[in-house]
Amino acid sequence: MSLLTSSVWSPISGGITTPNGFLAAGISAGLKPSGKKDLALLYAPDGACCSGTFTQSVTRAYCVDLCIDRLKASEGKIRAVVINSGHANACTGSRGKIDSEIITHELAKRLGLFDEEVLICSTGVIGEPIPVEKVNTHLDYLIKSLGKEAYHDAANAILTTDLQVKQIAYQAVLGGRRISIGGMAKGSGMIHPSMATMLSYITCDVGIDHILWSQMIKRVAESSFNSITVDGDTSTNDTFLAFASGSELDARYLSTLEEGLHLTAQYLAKAIARDGEGANCLLEIKVKGAQSDLDAHVMARTVASSSLVKTAIHGSDPNWGRIIAALGRAGIFFNINDVNLWIGPYEIFSNGKPLDFDRQIVSNFMKARLNGKYLIDDLITICVRVGTGKGSSTAWGCDLSDQYVRINADYTT
Amino acid sequence: MSLLTSSVWSPISGGITTPNGFLAAGISAGLKPSGKKDLALLYAPDGACCSGTFTQSVTRAYCVDLCIDRLKASEGKIRAVVINSGHANACTGSRGKIDSEIITHELAKRLGLFDEEVLICSTGVIGEPIPVEKVNTHLDYLIKSLGKEAYHDAANAILTTDLQVKQIAYQAVLGGRRISIGGMAKGSGMIHPSMATMLSYITCDVGIDHILWSQMIKRVAESSFNSITVDGDTSTNDTFLAFASGSELDARYLSTLEEGLHLTAQYLAKAIARDGEGANCLLEIKVKGAQSDLDAHVMARTVASSSLVKTAIHGSDPNWGRIIAALGRAGIFFNINDVNLWIGPYEIFSNGKPLDFDRQIVSNFMKARLNGKYLIDDLITICVRVGTGKGSSTAWGCDLSDQYVRINADYTT
Repeated sequence: MSLLTSSVWSPISGGITTPNGFLAAGISAGLKPSGKKDLALLYAPDGACCSGTFTQSVTRAYCVDLCIDRLKASEGKIRAVVINSGHANACTGSRGKIDSEIITHELAKRLGLFDEEVLICSTGVIGEPIPVEKVNTHLDYLIKSLGKEAYHDAANAILTTDLQVKQIAYQAVLGGRRISIGGMAKGSGMIHPSMATMLSYITCDVGIDHILWSQMIKRVAESSFNSITVDGDTSTNDTFLAFASGSELDARYLSTLEEGLHLTAQYLAKAIARDGEGANCLLEIKVKGAQSDLDAHVMARTVASSSLVKTAIHGSDPNWGRIIAALGRAGIFFNINDVNLWIGPYEIFSNGKPLDFDRQIVSNFMKARLNGKYLIDDLITICVRVGTGKGSSTAWGCDLSDQYVRINADYTT
Repeated sequence: MSLLTSSVWSPISGGITTPNGFLAAGISAGLKPSGKKDLALLYAPDGACCSGTFTQSVTRAYCVDLCIDRLKASEGKIRAVVINSGHANACTGSRGKIDSEIITHELAKRLGLFDEEVLICSTGVIGEPIPVEKVNTHLDYLIKSLGKEAYHDAANAILTTDLQVKQIAYQAVLGGRRISIGGMAKGSGMIHPSMATMLSYITCDVGIDHILWSQMIKRVAESSFNSITVDGDTSTNDTFLAFASGSELDARYLSTLEEGLHLTAQYLAKAIARDGEGANCLLEIKVKGAQSDLDAHVMARTVASSSLVKTAIHGSDPNWGRIIAALGRAGIFFNINDVNLWIGPYEIFSNGKPLDFDRQIVSNFMKARLNGKYLIDDLITICVRVGTGKGSSTAWGCDLSDQYVRINADYTT
């Protein structure tokens, strides 16, 4: 995958602190036995406006409740987010609430903020409470580490089983004004959005009305974090927070701003799918010709989550029957005689009939990409036209490998 | 798992031909490169009544259309079913229909039946047409092989990636009359019912009204074949056919008959789940205390299909957080403070709080069962109480192993 660009937005070196006024920190507070960085802080300028989307899980962690409640109470006036990795603090009973409140209270006190202006996100093993004392004794050091250059530390500190740091920055000039968007994310397993099992943060240095921003962020989440899957499991802690801060943007540039947010979020979402546990490629499923975008979305997601499609990809096997079977069980009606299917540039199935294609050539095409470099030449695209409708959608996933099983068979014990 | 019994029904040695009047055959017609048996025939007595349930896939194979159409046209008066393994004849374009009709026509002619009295089921690789000539030149031999003792041959001939033959017979005395039920099934991958990816056949030597029989068969399918999952993928060819033949049963024994059908179907369903590709145990998920049986069914199925739960089982890892997370994303509301969870006899989580259990003891319990003997001492039960409602349900699945990935990464090429 080459980096997405548009006529307006260009990727630049940077991350979550690239937009004006945002600071970040990432330190080791001794939460992970490995000694790796495990505590991050994102600090937003006064006047920043924050919106978010969250896991739909019935068993969501208390930190998610806290984020939702405080975003609502403050109408988005959030100034700081602390993120701990290693302990999900989900399903920990009543102490889940108490621990989240203690940490945000201690942080707010030190930053001169109200408790309601501070959020907390946790990621790690479910059922594991946060070592609160360890976190609290490191808060002064965390705050002291805040800086413009520490975006990489923060993006590192939020990781768990991830192999790759996930961050990006885009820049554009809108109405003579230089605008930046920055983002960071984590996620590798328990990834099946609504939301994906992930934490994701985006910052932006323009001001925008809170309601408009919230609507924009919901649409951005749909085409990015809600369009990826690694293993079909939705997490208890999924959180996507997006901050806008600065002088207001002229209304005529709002759609261009949204385009930049889509680019940023899609990059992060694909980076998560590609870094799926045990993954060796980024799998892209495009569905066209459906009755509606929603129909296409459901079909694309179903194919991207099929274990049989994912193992076929892992085996460089152009086993198109599994793709058709996955489409067939998505619960959306279509006529098989209208179906065309491509793997990469190769047409495999046309108007309901298998074509006489060279299996070896297509298999070689897949095999080369399975050994491709992370987010550079590791993309396998499956495109399906299911009719003549105007609905289309894209979903992202990854191959299913023996390594996925090993990682997850051995995770806690 | 010990064989299910009831006060009335006892398992006996036998299979699909145990009930009076039914004959079967299983031969090698050279369809499988391995030379293994690959063509089966089930022959029902005159007057037999047949009902079935079928895959819900939009891309179902033409043989499924044929079964549905002929069952309807004949009001269940079906006399023979031919089953070929190795070639699914799904997504093969217009020849799918033609080939299915040619084979059933040739068979009907030889058996002195109308075409409408003969069904065909196919299983194997999607997109592969049936080698029609090979089948037709073996039809005389297939018919000549029909016999009471050939039930084992038939149960063998319908297998594809299965490691185990799946068949059972039950017997009871109802109103002084000896009644038998027999069954056989195949299925190992692409198993996620509505229906499970499977072929399954049940015979029974009592007569019953066709409409009553159809209703009974639907209920039986729900608690058995629609309660198992191996990999979340629904097949294009799933078919469950059930025959009743003989003098009518007194109406007061109908519920006892249905009990026997449930026992038979559940045995076959569990045998499929346990023989899931790469599986090392039978996973049983019991959900109790839900608002309705349907709610409990959805929750049990969601846990049984979770890749993260299945890999944890494979790793003998009592990672209960993944079980709770899977429940949480099932789309059914419950209060986590009402949840209790057991793995085998060990309570792990009580009223919303993790208990301080000995991980090693529970892990050892799981490990012993992972090496257990097929359908004897290989059962791992997870029980979840989600509230005080009256709804309950059970789903079956298996662990997810590296072997599953290898089998499916290397299946066609």
